[in-house]
Amino acid sequence: MPKKVIVLGTGLVGNAIAIDLAKKYDTSAVDISTKYFARLQEHNVKTLLEDLSDLYEMSRLIADYDLVIGALPGHMGYKTLKKVIETGKNIVDISFMPEDFMTLDHLAKKNKITAVVDCGVAPGMGNLILGYHNSKMKVDSFTCYVGGLPIRREWPFEYKAVFSPIDVIEEYMRPARYVEKGHLVVKDALSDIELIDFKQIGTLEAWNSDGLRSLLITMEIPNMIEKTLRYPGTTQNIKILRETGFFSHEEIEVRGVKIKPIDVTSQVLFPKWQLQPGEGDFTIMRIIISGEQDGKKLKYVYELYDSFDADTDTLSMARTTGYTCTAVANLILQDKYKEHGISPPEYVGAKEGNYEAVMAYLRERGVNYEVRSRQ
Amino acid sequence: MPKKVIVLGTGLVGNAIAIDLAKKYDTSAVDISTKYFARLQEHNVKTLLEDLSDLYEMSRLIADYDLVIGALPGHMGYKTLKKVIETGKNIVDISFMPEDFMTLDHLAKKNKITAVVDCGVAPGMGNLILGYHNSKMKVDSFTCYVGGLPIRREWPFEYKAVFSPIDVIEEYMRPARYVEKGHLVVKDALSDIELIDFKQIGTLEAWNSDGLRSLLITMEIPNMIEKTLRYPGTTQNIKILRETGFFSHEEIEVRGVKIKPIDVTSQVLFPKWQLQPGEGDFTIMRIIISGEQDGKKLKYVYELYDSFDADTDTLSMARTTGYTCTAVANLILQDKYKEHGISPPEYVGAKEGNYEAVMAYLRERGVNYEVRSRQ
Repeated sequence: MPKKVIVLGTGLVGNAIAIDLAKKYDTSAVDISTKYFARLQEHNVKTLLEDLSDLYEMSRLIADYDLVIGALPGHMGYKTLKKVIETGKNIVDISFMPEDFMTLDHLAKKNKITAVVDCGVAPGMGNLILGYHNSKMKVDSFTCYVGGLPIRREWPFEYKAVFSPIDVIEEYMRPARYVEKGHLVVKDALSDIELIDFKQIGTLEAWNSDGLRSLLITMEIPNMIEKTLRYPGTTQNIKILRETGFFSHEEIEVRGVKIKPIDVTSQVLFPKWQLQPGEGDFTIMRIIISGEQDGKKLKYVYELYDSFDADTDTLSMARTTGYTCTAVANLILQDKYKEHGISPPEYVGAKEGNYEAVMAYLRERGVNYEVRSRQ
Repeated sequence: MPKKVIVLGTGLVGNAIAIDLAKKYDTSAVDISTKYFARLQEHNVKTLLEDLSDLYEMSRLIADYDLVIGALPGHMGYKTLKKVIETGKNIVDISFMPEDFMTLDHLAKKNKITAVVDCGVAPGMGNLILGYHNSKMKVDSFTCYVGGLPIRREWPFEYKAVFSPIDVIEEYMRPARYVEKGHLVVKDALSDIELIDFKQIGTLEAWNSDGLRSLLITMEIPNMIEKTLRYPGTTQNIKILRETGFFSHEEIEVRGVKIKPIDVTSQVLFPKWQLQPGEGDFTIMRIIISGEQDGKKLKYVYELYDSFDADTDTLSMARTTGYTCTAVANLILQDKYKEHGISPPEYVGAKEGNYEAVMAYLRERGVNYEVRSRQ
């Protein structure tokens, strides 16, 4: 009998995850929207219509499964994770939750649960790759540039949100933390814009984003930074909205009605951030890890350029995020990763054999990380 | 006994008008806000607290005056003008009303009323100057570049609204009409951005605005255009809001509440568009009139650069708009202009002696139009 997996959330990434897992496992997927249900059913995924904000119902639903995949918006991530652990189920999660998931480590250990979090492309693969190298060398510096962008550049934002758009706005607001010479530095999101060239697409701009997350706690590396990539000039256009107050969560009174500007902005903006049917995206990532290995200075440079798959109509962000998640799900389902507690992906990468297994899994699906090393 | 004038609206421009008129006339000013009342009283202006959207009350208020000055927001302009004419009072108006004021011409003539409209700097002085030259020469082309800008450039809009900010947004939305080779051309507001140098401040950008208004009807000139001036680059930032939908008047539903994006945008944006106490502005205008005079090709170039008056704390836009209005008010109060009907300022300028009188009046107040002519 194949093992049973349940995917919570069937958005653009969640549905790619479910379809990938259904090739090998008995897979179900749950959402409050039926938007992708027909597509999922075509790929042998059982679909369940349910409001997952009802945690009691969610707990009941997952009771019969071997593994849970969390693919919900950031604001639902933490409470879902907690309830899954309480229910006694292993989980791989990709939601970009604002809360500190490490606060659930004790509970997960107590319940003998394996819970891998932040398990997408970024956060996710950067952590896993760093975890791997960190187990082999003394790392001095980790830099990650990453972005998911539409192929068509539509003015003024030249951006489409593949994951929850409200999470994107949060990323534009949340102060960015990085480590420089051993010290934690906190800067504005969207700060320190620099231009970077990529051979596949030309010049992009990179800005400080708060993507290090668990690495700030789990790693003792003196220099670590993550920057997000956008088409040049568009970050400025986001700043216009942010600085003017359109992202504010503070209620204002408009013609006698109390309202938060962010809610109105979401309504106005998000339709513009939606990929149109057939529209493609790409994921681009450059990771630079340098330090000392076997007594020698060494630098590793990873480059990922992945484009959407027109044949299967699968977005690149769904591929690069989703297949990282399913790669790790496979490790758990095959008993190759069974650490109890909360595991950010650097823990997974640090364990012998996992890095190679995940890279091979991704390669099979056409997601190729080029890696060069030089002294 | 001095004649009696009543000023409707005591915003930034209205209060400069009242203060100027009070030097010579028995002047009252009315508003729903007491913001400038203390200042007005210091300058010998009687202040009346009244809601002028109550037209019956307004009509009662003006009964005892020789001349009415309309200095209300655009959306109140037309109905106020109509009621003043019905009440049988002469009026000089500066409100940028969207309606066609010429539809009141018949009523004004019937009631033997002199009503000068659009009587500010732009519309206003451009019309008056063109009316003057048009009476002396065969004009082939009229171009007007005009802007009112803050001295401090605050990102991202580098703009402060001296008149009603909602009228400014309307200007960003309303299609712009101009005349080219005898044909009416309609283009997007904010279109055809060009860079223009001014000796006093450097480079500004100019875009098509719908400022010709009455000139489209009253003048048979084959080429006429008005463009509005802003600091370079900021028009693009306004377009970001406009194209994304933040200026939309169409109701959307946000968390169960129906709301117009423009109302929320106004609330968020207008505080940022407010001049801070002590902050200064300037007005810049370049008018180019060319044609044939006495059998010769001739071109007139007018340049206005006017800065705020720190001594009296009077903004430049209040000076250039307000003193044009008071100059024409003086012509009427001194029986030098008494045409019945609706007069856009080109009618005033076409009448012998008025152009010189208005220019002299402005010069006395430090508002200097430099004029050069060349063949």
